[in-house]
Amino acid sequence: MSAPTAEQLVDRRSRAVAALDGLGTEGLLVTTLVNVRYLTGFTGSNGALVLGADGAGTFLTDGRYRDQAAEEVPDLDHFITRDLLGEAAKRMPGSWACETHTMSVDEHATLQEAGVSVVSASRLVERLREIKDDGEIDALRRACQISVDALQDLLAGPLAGRTETQVARDLEWRMLELGAEAIGFETILASGPNSAIPHHRATDRVLQIGDLVKADFGARVDGYHADCTRTVVLGAADDWQREIHAAVQASQAAGVDALREGTPVAASDEVARKVLDDAGWLERFTTGVGHGVGLEIHEDPFIGRKHVGRLASRTTLTMEPGIYLPGRGGVRIEDTVLVTPDAPEVLTTMTTDLLEIA
Amino acid sequence: MSAPTAEQLVDRRSRAVAALDGLGTEGLLVTTLVNVRYLTGFTGSNGALVLGADGAGTFLTDGRYRDQAAEEVPDLDHFITRDLLGEAAKRMPGSWACETHTMSVDEHATLQEAGVSVVSASRLVERLREIKDDGEIDALRRACQISVDALQDLLAGPLAGRTETQVARDLEWRMLELGAEAIGFETILASGPNSAIPHHRATDRVLQIGDLVKADFGARVDGYHADCTRTVVLGAADDWQREIHAAVQASQAAGVDALREGTPVAASDEVARKVLDDAGWLERFTTGVGHGVGLEIHEDPFIGRKHVGRLASRTTLTMEPGIYLPGRGGVRIEDTVLVTPDAPEVLTTMTTDLLEIA
Repeated sequence: MSAPTAEQLVDRRSRAVAALDGLGTEGLLVTTLVNVRYLTGFTGSNGALVLGADGAGTFLTDGRYRDQAAEEVPDLDHFITRDLLGEAAKRMPGSWACETHTMSVDEHATLQEAGVSVVSASRLVERLREIKDDGEIDALRRACQISVDALQDLLAGPLAGRTETQVARDLEWRMLELGAEAIGFETILASGPNSAIPHHRATDRVLQIGDLVKADFGARVDGYHADCTRTVVLGAADDWQREIHAAVQASQAAGVDALREGTPVAASDEVARKVLDDAGWLERFTTGVGHGVGLEIHEDPFIGRKHVGRLASRTTLTMEPGIYLPGRGGVRIEDTVLVTPDAPEVLTTMTTDLLEIA
Repeated sequence: MSAPTAEQLVDRRSRAVAALDGLGTEGLLVTTLVNVRYLTGFTGSNGALVLGADGAGTFLTDGRYRDQAAEEVPDLDHFITRDLLGEAAKRMPGSWACETHTMSVDEHATLQEAGVSVVSASRLVERLREIKDDGEIDALRRACQISVDALQDLLAGPLAGRTETQVARDLEWRMLELGAEAIGFETILASGPNSAIPHHRATDRVLQIGDLVKADFGARVDGYHADCTRTVVLGAADDWQREIHAAVQASQAAGVDALREGTPVAASDEVARKVLDDAGWLERFTTGVGHGVGLEIHEDPFIGRKHVGRLASRTTLTMEPGIYLPGRGGVRIEDTVLVTPDAPEVLTTMTTDLLEIA
C-alpha cells in the first residue's frame, strides 16, 4: 500500500486552513472519517483532527490504533482516548469550524457544553478532495486498470448457465487477484429483465443466451475507488438491444467529452441527457448522470442540472447514462474520467461497443 | 434471502411506539439506516421512517429504490423523494423523537426550520434491537455456522508458506462458497509478531512454522453478522504460546459462562478480566471484552465495567478476551453467544483448544 507523502499531507492541511478564511474561527475540527484520512493519512475506523488556523494539528484516536497512528500519522501530535469529542473540545477554545453535515446532534451538544462555539464548515474538506494530487490519480488509475482487466478476463469465459451471484463473485475474485486491496462496492450483476433495475442486487437467476448483462463494479486501491459499468449481450443481440445500447453509448461519449476544465458541471448533465432526449429515450433514464469518485465511491461533485460550479482539472468523475425498460432489460455504460487541461482522460480504458459474449 | 415477516415488523414497530411512552412526542423519526431496516425490512442505502405514535408509518426513499421499496416494505405508505428530511418534516407536525446520536446538525436544522420540535430518542431502536426474534436468531445461527465451517476447512490445508492476505482471502472465499451473502467485516489475519496487534490488517507477510496465527472473521447472512476469532499455532507450540493461550481460553470460557439472563453486563466484563488478572496477564489485555452483534457487527450492548444494565434473554454478544505481547505474538479467542433463559448458547461452535496446524 502506498500512502500520501508527508508533503502531500502538509499541502492538504494548508489548503484546509486557507479555506477557513473568512469564517473567523480558531481552526477546523475534522470528524468525518474519510476527511480525517485525507488530511492525516490515518486509515483506521476512529479518529479526529483538531487543526488550528495556524496549521498546528492534534490527531485523536483510541487505544486500538496507538501503533497504527504512530506509523501513519508521524507528523502530528497524538492523543489517545475513548472520548474523542470530549478531548477535542479541550483543545478548542473559542469558535471552531465543524463538519455539521456529518457531526451528530449529540456530538454538537458535547462541544457546546464544553464551551466550544460551533460554526458550520460543511463540506469544506469534501470540496478540497475534488482536486486530486498525483498520488491520488495514480491510485485511481491503478484501481481502474485492475477493474477493466478483471472484466475483460471475465468476458473471455462463458457466462451463460451461471448465476448472477456466481458471476459477480468471479469478477470480484479477479479484481482481488489482480491486486485490488478490496472490492470498492457491492457488485451489481444484473441479467435479462433484471438489467432494467438500475441498482439490482445479484440473485440466483441463471444467465441465458439473449440476456443483456450489466456489470457495475470497481476495485479499491490505496483507498481509492474505480467505478465502471458495461452492458453486454449473451449470444447475438436483438435489434432493440442494439438500439438502446447505441443510444446510451452516444450519450455517454458526449457526456465524457463534456468533462472538461472550466465547463459548468450542469452542462455535462445537459449534454448526456440531450442525446437520450433526441433519440426518444430520456424518460427511460431514471438515474443520475454521474458523480465524483475518489476516497468515496460517491463524492463531490455530483453531476446535476442544479450544480452551479465548473469542472476543475484533476477532478475524477463518473459518466453513466442508461436506459431502463422495466420487465425487458436495460443498458448502462459508465467510465471513471479524469478532467485535465486538455481532453478528458478515461481511466477505465475498455471499449464501450456492444459485445456479444458466448 | 429471508426477510422479516410482516408480523415481526409490526411487532418491532409496536415496541418502538411503546418505547416512546413518556417522551410526549407525536411519534418517532427513524433516519439511522440500520434502524430503518430493522423496522421496515428495507435493505437499500437510503431511507427514512416517519412512525406516528398511533402506529401509522410513512416510508421515504429515493427513486432508485421505488421497486425495491414496493417489494420489501409492502405494508407502509411510501413516498419517493430526493429530499428525505424535507418531505419527512411535512409529515411531522409538533414534537417528534429523533435519532440525535446519528442525525447530523444540518439535518436537525432542516427539521427545525420546518417547524418540527426535535426531542432526543437516542438509541431507542438500538436498545430494541438488543433482543432478537426467531428470524434474527436463525440468521445469526446460520452466519456463525458458515463462519466456523469455513475456518475448519481452511485449517485442514497447509497454511505455512502463504501470505496473510492470501489466507484471509481464502477464508473469505470459503464463507461465500458456503452461502454467506457477504463478508461481515474486513478479515483480520495476523501471523507471528503481527498477532500481537489487536486489529491488524493482513499483509504480505508469509506464515511460518512457529507462528501464532490469529483469524478474526465472520460471515453475513440476511444482514446479520457472525463474529469469531481463533488463534492457532503453525507446527508445535512453544511453552509461552501454550501459556498465554491457556490463560485466554480460561478467561473466555468464564466470560461466556457469565452471559446469562439477569446478570449485570458489567459482571461479565469483571469475570473475564479476573481470570486474566489472576494469571498475571491483565495488563496485556488492551481491547474490549465483547459487544452486541446483529445487524451491525458492533452494536448494543457493549460489555464494559460502566454498563449499568443486565443481560436479557435473546441478546447476542461476543466474548473476546486476549493477550497481546508486542513484538512476539498474541492470542484472542472470540465466540458469538446467545443469552437464553438457561445456559449461554455458543453459536460459533468450534473448539477453543489450541490447534497445532501443519
